[in-house]
Amino acid sequence: MDSKTSAITREPLPNSRKIYVNGKLHDIKVAMREIVLSDTPHGCSKPGKSAANAPVTVYDTSGPFTDPNIAIDLKQGLPRFREEWLRKRTDIERLPDFSSEYSHLRMNDRSLDVLRFAHIEKPYRAKAGHSITQMYYAKQGIITPEMEYVAIRENQRIDELKELKQHPGMSYGANTPTSYITPEFVRDEVARGRAIIPANINHPECEPMVIGRNFLVKINTNIGNSAITSTIEEEVEKAVWSCRWGGDTLMDLSTGKNIHETREWIIRNCPVPMGTVPIYQALEKIGGVADDLTWELFRDTLIEQAEQGVDYFTIHAGLLQKHIPFAAKRTTGIVSRGGSILAKWCLTHKKENFLYTHFDEICEILRAYDVAVSLGDGLRPGSIADANDHAQFGELEVLGELTKTAWKHDVQAIIEGPGHVPMHLIKENMDKQLQYCHEAPFYTLGPLVTDIAPGYDHLTSAIGAALIGWYGTAMLCYVTPKEHLGLPNKKDVKDGVMAYKIAAHAADLAKGHPGAQHRDNAMSKARFEFRWEDQFNLSLDPDTARAFHNETPHAENTDDSKFCSMCGPGFCSMRLSHQVCEQVAENSSNED
Amino acid sequence: MDSKTSAITREPLPNSRKIYVNGKLHDIKVAMREIVLSDTPHGCSKPGKSAANAPVTVYDTSGPFTDPNIAIDLKQGLPRFREEWLRKRTDIERLPDFSSEYSHLRMNDRSLDVLRFAHIEKPYRAKAGHSITQMYYAKQGIITPEMEYVAIRENQRIDELKELKQHPGMSYGANTPTSYITPEFVRDEVARGRAIIPANINHPECEPMVIGRNFLVKINTNIGNSAITSTIEEEVEKAVWSCRWGGDTLMDLSTGKNIHETREWIIRNCPVPMGTVPIYQALEKIGGVADDLTWELFRDTLIEQAEQGVDYFTIHAGLLQKHIPFAAKRTTGIVSRGGSILAKWCLTHKKENFLYTHFDEICEILRAYDVAVSLGDGLRPGSIADANDHAQFGELEVLGELTKTAWKHDVQAIIEGPGHVPMHLIKENMDKQLQYCHEAPFYTLGPLVTDIAPGYDHLTSAIGAALIGWYGTAMLCYVTPKEHLGLPNKKDVKDGVMAYKIAAHAADLAKGHPGAQHRDNAMSKARFEFRWEDQFNLSLDPDTARAFHNETPHAENTDDSKFCSMCGPGFCSMRLSHQVCEQVAENSSNED
Repeated sequence: MDSKTSAITREPLPNSRKIYVNGKLHDIKVAMREIVLSDTPHGCSKPGKSAANAPVTVYDTSGPFTDPNIAIDLKQGLPRFREEWLRKRTDIERLPDFSSEYSHLRMNDRSLDVLRFAHIEKPYRAKAGHSITQMYYAKQGIITPEMEYVAIRENQRIDELKELKQHPGMSYGANTPTSYITPEFVRDEVARGRAIIPANINHPECEPMVIGRNFLVKINTNIGNSAITSTIEEEVEKAVWSCRWGGDTLMDLSTGKNIHETREWIIRNCPVPMGTVPIYQALEKIGGVADDLTWELFRDTLIEQAEQGVDYFTIHAGLLQKHIPFAAKRTTGIVSRGGSILAKWCLTHKKENFLYTHFDEICEILRAYDVAVSLGDGLRPGSIADANDHAQFGELEVLGELTKTAWKHDVQAIIEGPGHVPMHLIKENMDKQLQYCHEAPFYTLGPLVTDIAPGYDHLTSAIGAALIGWYGTAMLCYVTPKEHLGLPNKKDVKDGVMAYKIAAHAADLAKGHPGAQHRDNAMSKARFEFRWEDQFNLSLDPDTARAFHNETPHAENTDDSKFCSMCGPGFCSMRLSHQVCEQVAENSSNED
Repeated sequence: MDSKTSAITREPLPNSRKIYVNGKLHDIKVAMREIVLSDTPHGCSKPGKSAANAPVTVYDTSGPFTDPNIAIDLKQGLPRFREEWLRKRTDIERLPDFSSEYSHLRMNDRSLDVLRFAHIEKPYRAKAGHSITQMYYAKQGIITPEMEYVAIRENQRIDELKELKQHPGMSYGANTPTSYITPEFVRDEVARGRAIIPANINHPECEPMVIGRNFLVKINTNIGNSAITSTIEEEVEKAVWSCRWGGDTLMDLSTGKNIHETREWIIRNCPVPMGTVPIYQALEKIGGVADDLTWELFRDTLIEQAEQGVDYFTIHAGLLQKHIPFAAKRTTGIVSRGGSILAKWCLTHKKENFLYTHFDEICEILRAYDVAVSLGDGLRPGSIADANDHAQFGELEVLGELTKTAWKHDVQAIIEGPGHVPMHLIKENMDKQLQYCHEAPFYTLGPLVTDIAPGYDHLTSAIGAALIGWYGTAMLCYVTPKEHLGLPNKKDVKDGVMAYKIAAHAADLAKGHPGAQHRDNAMSKARFEFRWEDQFNLSLDPDTARAFHNETPHAENTDDSKFCSMCGPGFCSMRLSHQVCEQVAENSSNED
């Protein structure tokens, strides 16, 4: 792999700078993005208001890549800043070597040296008999640096916090930002299992984030190398690209060759939690024959990936033999890859799903590294005709049972959800998930609200995602425009991320997240005051907003820029509206 | 204007043909689109099922342009097929000349001859003392050809109707297609004012359609010439293009020169109802100075446009003096162009809105041509900060009062709605509209569920549109990606239409429209059976679906094509799923 980083996008977003907020309980620095605004132009400000517009602080998932003060070298990986926190712990230890057979096999293969990340570190693991997960600490009443980090991060509006009272959870209706999120609130949510902080001790490059319905709705993006087109550097850039635009977590769904080596490169350069579906790699190891899967092979794959630093695993342990006949009757059968692999295995061997029968052992492995489990929905509907059927909800009940098992082991758990669901059936998904799964965070793919728009499924699914996010889903797995059609390129990834940032933010507003409406209000003020540059810079995608604006020929504006040539001065509602405001102000002062 | 029609898109959509369904009450032919499907490939069909897949009939807004048997000549305009229906009426008459002063002015200006449509027909009008609107007929118990036309059109699935019972209105929850829409049901809805059929007697080229919450959710698109870029032919093509992709109605929001002549070209070539905002043209006539507007000028503009064939007028008659101080306090003031023009006028003249004070006279004019009124929301919120405020709902109450006035005159009425509204405040808009406006159809712009995504406002607004459509909004006014940034080009128009077709269809599914899920089910079956061509052809946008699929290099498939190279055969969930279905079938037959 070429070490040049020219393919990696590094520029800060326009008029934005990285700021770091210090912790109070721990020696931590929380990264945020500050958008600097221009002054209100003369004649646009309301009487008695200052012309200065305070900078807007926003949640920033882009990591060190957008900080010009940090040198980036893909060969070195990102700074392992969380390692300092780990060193203070007495319950973890550094192993002398990797524990997975497959890891050894790959490490000893000299032909892979050209592909290999050069600075592989030995893995951390819990000392024998110790529970080291964020959930464990939370249950003990301990606020970890990770918990303080996410509390500060969630609030966004650092300057105004002193006026606010502690956040009691989402108001689900009122969006008045009168409260803020405290570290203790985070701890309590994690202890209850209502939120998770995916933070494998072997991924110290990762900036902590929280997934739970009383926090900002998060989005996950998927990447994956394909045998045909991708290089490792392109995969890293896809990850950087996804984080740049707001991806909160990243799933590596690679199914091609050299998954192990590609993953190492991505994790070492990934500032957000990374998830995988370990059964994909397990299947790859045996040439793609589902029937040949064994528990031992799967177990080794879990350890291999946990020691690399994967933060959460999708595990389809809830699909049982009894569900399969119901799935076979469906319009679109089983559309989850993991689900279809396991259903095939169960039928051939006439045995129960080995992920279910070995789930306690799985939890023991995950607990040793603080890998979270994402309980996969192998029976999610692949068409609206199959939505909310017996197969789907039957599996969901089992996922609730497995959630209890995970919690017993102090393993952080989230629950995966559909899929394809028409709008009127979405709420039932959320209600049943809360009920069956004891309020563990829900993590859904869309859902797509119709089947008839391939090419636009980022949009069909953003509708469902916004709805289910509002109802309480904690994380939304993005869908790109290429869904059902082909593999996403960089543009598709960005389109998918944007659709989901919109859905998540719409849900945050509707839920009443205390910091959510701040940015909308700044945008609307900039709009009313004809501050075009500020409008671009406050946008989720400043580049596209600016480019679209520049596509329309605009006449040279007057000095005060109080209209644009879209409508012209005679038809500019904003310009007329300013005149109306002035006249109303005059009338009322005449009356005084 | 060049008469060559090469710039006009005419090809039928892939594997689709125009079909015509005959009326039973009237001598009418209802145009629909039939998508022809391929057979289920060997090995993919379920046991005992036929390999043949029946064609899917879908609602078709594209007009004669996609019928290769109809010659199109923009200079001649479309066939005036509805004129035969009008000739049978004894309550209308053809005028010897146009009634508007401005029309005469333009007709007598020889310098405009080069721009002028060559075959302008003399206008129709109600005979003195006669009410001739669809609402009037409906109240009399008369089923017009227009009513039968829209009843047949709404059902889509013509072959299965004989098994179904009459549609009782939307089930709002259950989506089982067990009923169909009858002409009598349409008549009843129009008589109650719960639906309208916009059908100016001077637009006989228009294929009738219905707007009401117990029918398919409709979408409106906006076009408008700008002084800078557009030619008349380009404007006609924009209309054709919008109809091709599913625009149900079209609003001409032109504010430049030669509005009168451009409008004639568009209406004569427009197969869908056309709306305008007459105050824009009125303002244009007086050089853009809002304070110079008069009732007489406005009145002449209404008559001018009604005699050209405009099917509905947006009229901002609900904005009253008492609302203006509330609007002046807002974050974004008044963002409706019409609203800001009238607020300015009211303040300057210290008089009540002349559209309100002359509303009875407006209705008398509209009634004589069967122009529907779209009661404009001049005080719609321009930011989520302003959503659901006193200004907005105060105006809505007045729109309810005006609805009653319109109905008294047998004028068909719809109510315009917001705008920018966060998700949790959307339902209140629908509830209040139903309550204040006596169930007259609601027609909303989006709403946008966040302000921070300029460049993606087709998407932010499609989320709100899908929601409010589900709640009962009858028509959704599209928003393009260029909203807030610039003027839309052809790609933007298509992106806007697609976003809104998705929102409308999602709402139809959620409302339980009897014909809605048919196409989704056909798509899902094609997906499960690896019928790629059928998937493309059943898509809302076959061109994009096919192009996206072709972007990913696909290995040559095996004979039965039971996987694609996105995942490869080992990871194809559908392929594994087929194997699972086969094994389940075998197991159950072994048990027999």
